[in-house]
Amino acid sequence: MRHSLGRLRVWLYFQLEPKAWGYGLSPFNWVICALIALSSTLAILETEPGVREGREALIHGLELVFSSVFLVEYIVRVWCCVENRHYRHPFKGRLAYLLSPAAVLDLLAVLPLLLGVVGPQTLLLRFVRLLRIVRLAKFGRFSRAVHRINVAVRSRGYELSISMIIALSFMVFASILLYFVEGDVQPEAFGSIPRALWWSVITFTTVGYGDVYPITHLGKVLAGLTAIAGIALVAMPTGILASAFSDAMQRGRFEEDEIKKKN
Amino acid sequence: MRHSLGRLRVWLYFQLEPKAWGYGLSPFNWVICALIALSSTLAILETEPGVREGREALIHGLELVFSSVFLVEYIVRVWCCVENRHYRHPFKGRLAYLLSPAAVLDLLAVLPLLLGVVGPQTLLLRFVRLLRIVRLAKFGRFSRAVHRINVAVRSRGYELSISMIIALSFMVFASILLYFVEGDVQPEAFGSIPRALWWSVITFTTVGYGDVYPITHLGKVLAGLTAIAGIALVAMPTGILASAFSDAMQRGRFEEDEIKKKN
Amino acid sequence: MRHSLGRLRVWLYFQLEPKAWGYGLSPFNWVICALIALSSTLAILETEPGVREGREALIHGLELVFSSVFLVEYIVRVWCCVENRHYRHPFKGRLAYLLSPAAVLDLLAVLPLLLGVVGPQTLLLRFVRLLRIVRLAKFGRFSRAVHRINVAVRSRGYELSISMIIALSFMVFASILLYFVEGDVQPEAFGSIPRALWWSVITFTTVGYGDVYPITHLGKVLAGLTAIAGIALVAMPTGILASAFSDAMQRGRFEEDEIKKKN
Amino acid sequence: MRHSLGRLRVWLYFQLEPKAWGYGLSPFNWVICALIALSSTLAILETEPGVREGREALIHGLELVFSSVFLVEYIVRVWCCVENRHYRHPFKGRLAYLLSPAAVLDLLAVLPLLLGVVGPQTLLLRFVRLLRIVRLAKFGRFSRAVHRINVAVRSRGYELSISMIIALSFMVFASILLYFVEGDVQPEAFGSIPRALWWSVITFTTVGYGDVYPITHLGKVLAGLTAIAGIALVAMPTGILASAFSDAMQRGRFEEDEIKKKN
Repeated sequence: MRHSLGRLRVWLYFQLEPKAWGYGLSPFNWVICALIALSSTLAILETEPGVREGREALIHGLELVFSSVFLVEYIVRVWCCVENRHYRHPFKGRLAYLLSPAAVLDLLAVLPLLLGVVGPQTLLLRFVRLLRIVRLAKFGRFSRAVHRINVAVRSRGYELSISMIIALSFMVFASILLYFVEGDVQPEAFGSIPRALWWSVITFTTVGYGDVYPITHLGKVLAGLTAIAGIALVAMPTGILASAFSDAMQRGRFEEDEIKKKN
Repeated sequence: MRHSLGRLRVWLYFQLEPKAWGYGLSPFNWVICALIALSSTLAILETEPGVREGREALIHGLELVFSSVFLVEYIVRVWCCVENRHYRHPFKGRLAYLLSPAAVLDLLAVLPLLLGVVGPQTLLLRFVRLLRIVRLAKFGRFSRAVHRINVAVRSRGYELSISMIIALSFMVFASILLYFVEGDVQPEAFGSIPRALWWSVITFTTVGYGDVYPITHLGKVLAGLTAIAGIALVAMPTGILASAFSDAMQRGRFEEDEIKKKN
Repeated sequence: MRHSLGRLRVWLYFQLEPKAWGYGLSPFNWVICALIALSSTLAILETEPGVREGREALIHGLELVFSSVFLVEYIVRVWCCVENRHYRHPFKGRLAYLLSPAAVLDLLAVLPLLLGVVGPQTLLLRFVRLLRIVRLAKFGRFSRAVHRINVAVRSRGYELSISMIIALSFMVFASILLYFVEGDVQPEAFGSIPRALWWSVITFTTVGYGDVYPITHLGKVLAGLTAIAGIALVAMPTGILASAFSDAMQRGRFEEDEIKKKN
Repeated sequence: MRHSLGRLRVWLYFQLEPKAWGYGLSPFNWVICALIALSSTLAILETEPGVREGREALIHGLELVFSSVFLVEYIVRVWCCVENRHYRHPFKGRLAYLLSPAAVLDLLAVLPLLLGVVGPQTLLLRFVRLLRIVRLAKFGRFSRAVHRINVAVRSRGYELSISMIIALSFMVFASILLYFVEGDVQPEAFGSIPRALWWSVITFTTVGYGDVYPITHLGKVLAGLTAIAGIALVAMPTGILASAFSDAMQRGRFEEDEIKKKN
């Protein structure tokens, strides 16, 4: 009996741990990923009153199913984790696993079920809803690409921070100019530098909502120059990031090929 | 008699089949391309009441001419297709050709004529109009570049999907933040996460219609950070696609030169 | 006397013809360039009623001075052109020069003076104003870079036209979708495909004025996808053009260095 | 006594002069940088009435502390500057240092304290506020990256100015077209070329506030073409700047490594 339980634990560990399984996703993890996607989509759509109203029972039932599966997944992962040589000890190892970021995320994803038992008050309800969407972060476990992009962006951290500082300085500079030029004419929009910064950021990033824009002649000239400068300043991080991502992707593809060859 | 018909069929096949003709377009296909362009333009302009009113007879007449030419083209292509060694058999080959995507498209382009005989009801009319514009897809037959770009984008499919997933995650994340911050103040615009997603997508892509934007201080700070993050996240697919297209185009140009040399 | 006139003509030719002078601009051409810039700026500012009113005499006087100088320049260029071996013949050569694009542009730039004598009627006045701004094109004579960029863009003509056709197809496709989805709800903005095209172009280029945008749920989903697709499609011509310009500039810099070495 | 003062001066010089300290920032300069950041943030936030009201005493007190520290820093830097071999002479050297841009900036950063003693009149107050934000420029002393980017942008000055001139010509051209097409319909927005230029700049840079946009059919067609052309023209400086920054950053990283190796 103990022996067959041990074999089950090994088998489950290989099914659940992406690194143990190797390249691609195991059938179990495919199901988990699908449930994360469905659960998050439900949590997002449910915030829309037109979707929620009249379907509370259905949503609550689905949510119960999702949470239960995630609870079972959590318990099984805790049970199996001792197969990993980092968490080998039945008590200390399991405790170490329970405190690892992935396990904490899994617990958070289960919390809505446990809190739901207490009874959903209005404030708690909001927090529970947020937790449901946080489940999206469970995807992180399965992704090598996210890790690689993370490394790539950090490797260009110096260039990025310099270009960000320059871009921010220009934004502050433009907002100071428009605060002096338009501050008296449009106090609501340009009456202080923080207010002018809202205009400045939305113009530099070329979003241009149109809720605030200069109306004086000098203000328009300065805003035009700001918009033109914005193109140049946006080109900096764009160029740096584009090349960083392209490098990370090529390295990643090479690694994937290596893994495929081994298998 | 049969002999001269056979020679006509061979000659027509070489005129109509771009791959048989080789580099460039045959005179027949130039006419077909011009008719596709004219017919699509007419179908687009005709939806404008100011253009249609008082010119119904003219438009109907032109449409009849275009459809008839496309019908003749369809019949001739079906007749000639047996010259292609893939469709050599008079019955099975022709049936196989009739079911090929290009032939189905040609049939769809002729449908408005056939449906027009039945008499245009309001709902059918809409469908017929759509079919007229679908004729634009007939261009696909003549384009090697479209095929090449298709291949190029697929070769970077992994990179593109990763960067798209990251961009979408940030969009969802930004919309959740603004749902919590602005949801109570502007329920119409930010009252649910799907509603906030509309704002999020329009801000990330730097379109910025200005129909929805945050009005609270915290909301503006978060929206500003979102707009700045949007630039970085948009840089990813841009960089990947730009290099993919550039590669595809260089390879394509090389192939064109090879074909030119042979001819 | 004839001899000294001949020497004057040679000297003026070297002063006026950028190719004869070699690298950089001759003092005479610096003056001409400054006058073109001043004259165009005046013609632009003069259209603003707040600038024009009360200064009609001053503007008219300055315009007279500019036009007179350009008239003298035109006459001198025609007189000197025979020094160029392409226009050596006193009559045939000068006639050939008079019909060259640069000479025709010079004549157009002088026309406001000649037409002003006739007396400025309202419609003619508009035309005269346009001619004054057309003087900006006189700069073309002095620019090697414009020629080089022209060559660069043409060398990538095939790639650019393919990417433009794909981008336009997507724009048309998006406008057809929104015509069907929003046409009945907002007939003013999406009531016909040409109307929807205005929305489509402004969204794809991420300009986003905000004068038209979808209001239905399905319309917003489609518009969001359109905005995301817009980024990808805009990346194509951007990548192609950026590399074309970069190539043209490097080649140009190399040529400049060669010319500098020779001098 | 004199000897120990001399040693203090050498020690302070090494603490305060980034080039003497070598790679990274000395503890003294970390404090200075933090104070610059805090002081500028205060100066920016203080312009917002909601932040300033009721906290005038606190803000004034903090401002006094910041200014006093900067005054001490200024005096110490002037005292120590003779350790630099460029400013070795006690009088001439110090005078030369006092007139150097960095020292003038330091003096400007102290001015608000000295002017505050005189008593802040409304107009003077504005100027003082501006001076407080100008302190941000004090950061320039510590940054090698800013210097390097400056060099990089200048090295592509020719390419950038050419692409800027072409982009500006297109903007002027587009504004002339819309002045003729929409001038009579929307005199407020397109009634003169300078007015139309506002629309043109905001459209070319894809900001698109939506305060002005064409309403006639021809105007919309031209605006659509302008928006499409804008993408191409914006691609030029973007491509040039992106590669210039990327080059500057790689060179800079190489230099940093060299400095690190030496240390």
